[in-house]
Amino acid sequence: MRKQNKKANMAGNSIGQFFRVTTFGESHGTALGCIVDGVPPSIALTEGDIQQDLDRRRPGTSRYTTQRCEPDKVQILSGVFQGITTGTSIGLIIKNTDQRSQDYSSIKNVFRPGHADYTYEQKYGNRDYCGGGRSSARETAMRVAAGAIAKKYLKEKHGVHIRGYLAQMGDISCHMKDWDQVEQNPFFCPDSSQVEELDKLMRMLRKAGDSVGAKITVIAKKVPVGLGEPVFDRLDADLAHALMSINAVKGVEIGDGFSVVNKRGSDNRDEITATGFQSNHAGGILGGISSGQDIIAHLALKPTSSIMIPGKTINKQGEEVEIVTRGRHDPCVGIRAVPIAEAMMAIIIMDHLLRQRAQCADVNSGAPRW
Amino acid sequence: MRKQNKKANMAGNSIGQFFRVTTFGESHGTALGCIVDGVPPSIALTEGDIQQDLDRRRPGTSRYTTQRCEPDKVQILSGVFQGITTGTSIGLIIKNTDQRSQDYSSIKNVFRPGHADYTYEQKYGNRDYCGGGRSSARETAMRVAAGAIAKKYLKEKHGVHIRGYLAQMGDISCHMKDWDQVEQNPFFCPDSSQVEELDKLMRMLRKAGDSVGAKITVIAKKVPVGLGEPVFDRLDADLAHALMSINAVKGVEIGDGFSVVNKRGSDNRDEITATGFQSNHAGGILGGISSGQDIIAHLALKPTSSIMIPGKTINKQGEEVEIVTRGRHDPCVGIRAVPIAEAMMAIIIMDHLLRQRAQCADVNSGAPRW
Amino acid sequence: MRKQNKKANMAGNSIGQFFRVTTFGESHGTALGCIVDGVPPSIALTEGDIQQDLDRRRPGTSRYTTQRCEPDKVQILSGVFQGITTGTSIGLIIKNTDQRSQDYSSIKNVFRPGHADYTYEQKYGNRDYCGGGRSSARETAMRVAAGAIAKKYLKEKHGVHIRGYLAQMGDISCHMKDWDQVEQNPFFCPDSSQVEELDKLMRMLRKAGDSVGAKITVIAKKVPVGLGEPVFDRLDADLAHALMSINAVKGVEIGDGFSVVNKRGSDNRDEITATGFQSNHAGGILGGISSGQDIIAHLALKPTSSIMIPGKTINKQGEEVEIVTRGRHDPCVGIRAVPIAEAMMAIIIMDHLLRQRAQCADVNSGAPRW
Amino acid sequence: MRKQNKKANMAGNSIGQFFRVTTFGESHGTALGCIVDGVPPSIALTEGDIQQDLDRRRPGTSRYTTQRCEPDKVQILSGVFQGITTGTSIGLIIKNTDQRSQDYSSIKNVFRPGHADYTYEQKYGNRDYCGGGRSSARETAMRVAAGAIAKKYLKEKHGVHIRGYLAQMGDISCHMKDWDQVEQNPFFCPDSSQVEELDKLMRMLRKAGDSVGAKITVIAKKVPVGLGEPVFDRLDADLAHALMSINAVKGVEIGDGFSVVNKRGSDNRDEITATGFQSNHAGGILGGISSGQDIIAHLALKPTSSIMIPGKTINKQGEEVEIVTRGRHDPCVGIRAVPIAEAMMAIIIMDHLLRQRAQCADVNSGAPRW
Repeated sequence: MRKQNKKANMAGNSIGQFFRVTTFGESHGTALGCIVDGVPPSIALTEGDIQQDLDRRRPGTSRYTTQRCEPDKVQILSGVFQGITTGTSIGLIIKNTDQRSQDYSSIKNVFRPGHADYTYEQKYGNRDYCGGGRSSARETAMRVAAGAIAKKYLKEKHGVHIRGYLAQMGDISCHMKDWDQVEQNPFFCPDSSQVEELDKLMRMLRKAGDSVGAKITVIAKKVPVGLGEPVFDRLDADLAHALMSINAVKGVEIGDGFSVVNKRGSDNRDEITATGFQSNHAGGILGGISSGQDIIAHLALKPTSSIMIPGKTINKQGEEVEIVTRGRHDPCVGIRAVPIAEAMMAIIIMDHLLRQRAQCADVNSGAPRW
Repeated sequence: MRKQNKKANMAGNSIGQFFRVTTFGESHGTALGCIVDGVPPSIALTEGDIQQDLDRRRPGTSRYTTQRCEPDKVQILSGVFQGITTGTSIGLIIKNTDQRSQDYSSIKNVFRPGHADYTYEQKYGNRDYCGGGRSSARETAMRVAAGAIAKKYLKEKHGVHIRGYLAQMGDISCHMKDWDQVEQNPFFCPDSSQVEELDKLMRMLRKAGDSVGAKITVIAKKVPVGLGEPVFDRLDADLAHALMSINAVKGVEIGDGFSVVNKRGSDNRDEITATGFQSNHAGGILGGISSGQDIIAHLALKPTSSIMIPGKTINKQGEEVEIVTRGRHDPCVGIRAVPIAEAMMAIIIMDHLLRQRAQCADVNSGAPRW
Repeated sequence: MRKQNKKANMAGNSIGQFFRVTTFGESHGTALGCIVDGVPPSIALTEGDIQQDLDRRRPGTSRYTTQRCEPDKVQILSGVFQGITTGTSIGLIIKNTDQRSQDYSSIKNVFRPGHADYTYEQKYGNRDYCGGGRSSARETAMRVAAGAIAKKYLKEKHGVHIRGYLAQMGDISCHMKDWDQVEQNPFFCPDSSQVEELDKLMRMLRKAGDSVGAKITVIAKKVPVGLGEPVFDRLDADLAHALMSINAVKGVEIGDGFSVVNKRGSDNRDEITATGFQSNHAGGILGGISSGQDIIAHLALKPTSSIMIPGKTINKQGEEVEIVTRGRHDPCVGIRAVPIAEAMMAIIIMDHLLRQRAQCADVNSGAPRW
Repeated sequence: MRKQNKKANMAGNSIGQFFRVTTFGESHGTALGCIVDGVPPSIALTEGDIQQDLDRRRPGTSRYTTQRCEPDKVQILSGVFQGITTGTSIGLIIKNTDQRSQDYSSIKNVFRPGHADYTYEQKYGNRDYCGGGRSSARETAMRVAAGAIAKKYLKEKHGVHIRGYLAQMGDISCHMKDWDQVEQNPFFCPDSSQVEELDKLMRMLRKAGDSVGAKITVIAKKVPVGLGEPVFDRLDADLAHALMSINAVKGVEIGDGFSVVNKRGSDNRDEITATGFQSNHAGGILGGISSGQDIIAHLALKPTSSIMIPGKTINKQGEEVEIVTRGRHDPCVGIRAVPIAEAMMAIIIMDHLLRQRAQCADVNSGAPRW
């Protein structure tokens, strides 16, 4: 039994040092917002630049994702004057227009297994039970918005491209055929010939009321050499932190990831000749610092726990009950994690790039020094 | 060609907010050291407490690890008065006594493939070429030292146990037989019946002049419920950051990790009954917050690139050369990563525990609330 | 002439670690806002609680302050559920309704002496010339809003009272008669008998088109013993930082301040007897830590440089010009700094209080231990 | 009476973000040390460079300061290779050789009024009673050491000079005659004709067993325009923080400081003509950003409370006792604060300079843009 009945308060809503993003807002609250600090001045920026990335993740886009048909329209409140960034904090806001609280009333007193409910209650007491509250995927809207600013800057000022795709869904592995195909289907699948198989799996899951996990690959091209700080602020460590902070992620790999366990040093090392690196097992990061090669990361996302199949759980009084979740859910959250992973990678690379400038290092295009 | 010839400076040698560790020192420099901030006062602490964890990783302990027979003796310079912590910064120092610089003279002008040499040179210019400099595994001595303080505090004041073991080496999977067996062989293998097989692989690799990767598992038991902050300071994200910051790590998993990709939601969720959680696929962390179950993490370590088999690389002038590394190397760095991973997990859990106290939450033993 | 034409970007819009305030917005932009992190949950909070402190500083309240008659209405966007804080980030927003840009068109191309214009232009290029942009006193609205939350929490949960008053305006020294009188005149003067003299000075300055400096005193009562960390996070150092960050502040004192220069140790020390401290020259802080006595701070505010009397300056081309500022200005900015200074002190004390809780120290009422 | 008997732990031993200094060590412990992060590589640095600034503050230099005749020899443990900085963390250490603990035994059980004893005991319990422990002036040795590195870098790479002097001792005001005279007397007095008067005051105080306060002025010349971030990381706010963190400081002024209270805007503003600024009331900082003019700061230091004249205090049991301090004390601590204030100013300016580089602003010599 507890002596003190005080509950914890939440902080930890900031990421980055030089390019800093601070978010606020609950899934079913009045609005979501964030402050983006450190955006260099004199960059052209409009709401449209941000909106296009938000639309890629917008619920309701495809019949597979959550049926909340919110437009998720972003508004810029500060930091931009006559279409050009001033260098001051950029305040972004998205008003919540579509909130179906009634779908969630049945879960008010039970803990949904696999959800943060149990741990939230233990920790916070006053659980905002609608739709997952702070930990909901909708909160990621602001990360995508902030990431959109970073992506634009990186692309236009440094030629850095960041793109992701679905690498695997359940037992279906997707093969990189063509980047263009990624945007042409609702799965972010890089091979259009596999779309039908994915669609079949999704319909089967929806019918069964179940869900499945996914693996995402995200790649950053033309990242300058030298980003990252040894010891504790390594680029790979910061990426791992940012990607693991995405809901449902249970694993992060850089380059060859867990397949290095079985490898020999003679196979795994990336040799260098006069024409450059001969391979990229390292995934673009050596000793925590970018090597100029493509930065390649993979994420493992667990299957959603909010499913139609009844599960065992307990209520606040500790009594065993059954839980059947209704509402609006995803058979595969992986479909939507692609823009979020891109956004997080953009935020981290932006942060390190600005840091590197503090150290007066040259920003190389990534070409070796010969 | 570069216009500016300025080089970057290095920072990023701190980790943690409430339990903060700042390190300094190079592998072949005068000394290694660190400052540990945030250690609560009135804790009994001696050099012996720290030394025992250092000895677990000491080079020269077994015939497989690096033949640098340094005693690695730690000295406490501040923060302890009459054997009790005062609450002030604890300064730790380890003097380097055995430095075989001559082993490294041949690599002064070439870049060892797979090493941080190339990226360091690009970034820093003045490369301290002996033994890997700052990025060497020996720098980890200070992490282990700081982690030893955290482990002691967590165990004695909160009953939290943190232990790791070798889960896989190359193609050999190690099965958890008995925690006691972990300390009885030089591999941290939890099944003594597999030691001979591991020994055979090591001798073969040493003869071939090659190396192999490994997978480490580290577990924290009895961690209180409620550690971690949603959004960006989640416990899993901080663990991923800390573990990925260990040299040679290319992948981090929490709980079931990448195997969740193939799973269904109906299988993967951890159901709750009156007797508690029925499984632990989540690895002890739900929604970024500790659930009270065992926290389970896995790391993938790549094989050492410093091997006897010649490899292709280039020198500073860009000419193709062959590199043959001599000196003192590990056929498997995984053997030594176990105490380091334990130390990093201890540091992160300590940091979150102290943070939680700021929020006046009860520190539970982890038992559910029924 | 400059080789590089890049301009700096602005960051540094956050204060605090445990109670963290991040602001955004320009004086003449769409809105002002901030995110307040670290507010403990289960606190009753309404917009009215914040509005009352904003109204104390609202332009248009008296005939002496700026004639911008904006209501400055604050809106809570997140972090409060059914009137109780949830512990999540609190997003606050104030929409700008009254913006008289036309008053400022004449200064677009000149640098107003004493203003940040020159340094801003040098640094940032794209100067948002309306009304002082980011550095305007209106930005302080958000600090007052965040401070209102801190003041409420401190008062209701810990009995800490924070109040300020005008101690001096030009050559007129104000004497503390009665705290109640502070709120009964537009000067925050603690002695109603001096109001007429102050009024006379203000009218004279307005007529002359000039301005005058002021000194503010702010006091925190019943602050618990033990707030502050030695060396670099001392309570006095953090207060100095927060108060010096208020626009126009050129000096900060704790306790007796600069008058200690002439004093002897035998006079200046605060002796302790069985009945407690016998004096408070230290102003409530000893060795950087609160002693339980009243915390007393004084600020010196310089006179506004935006005056009607023409002054010499240069334009962007370096030509000498005369500048005559029109618009809406204060003969004495000191009148409005009182609520801002209170807010900053509340934010700092709140931050340290939450930090202290991390260290499990008892929160005393301030009574000595005998 | 307290329910919980837990004591607080101490942190807060770091300052700076880009040029970061973390200190450890107690006055009478084994050693003092610090880690300096962020020093750019390729700078020539020897122990002698640091030692010369330490010797300026060394106890025993003059007959007026504390009679601890320690050599305070600094040793560089890392971060320098063959006399050139590598860019990695620089570890510095000073071993304590002269510790007269016996002088302090009488104060073990009483609280010295004006000292941090009372607040320390309340907060920390285990009070390290020798010589003031962590809060002792000797801890500042490490700040001076770190500041020496910053001063060297700023001077050699940017032509920035930072120098301080004694502006007032008790009722004696010192006038800036000549910078060279500052180093020629033990008072850091800039007018040799006043030395005799100061000497007379000191001998009188020593005889009386009393002490006196002082005012220090520190000036930085040729600071580039544009250092500082508006809102919360303003240069003046950071300077105020750093200077207020020096023991015994009770007031900080920038430029004209508290004398602005009486001034008119027409007098106080610094007008600009084609030949530049016509005055420097602002002390080199406008709107929180450096203007290129000399940065001028003043500090007020209170008189030492450790004096021979008996004072009233209480012991741990709350009984009234008399205290007579013996040992080795200063009649005026101001004499030694000059190098410390210079060091703090150097650290802050270095930190902001490195930050500014992150923003790709030109580093001007400070000349206006015409």
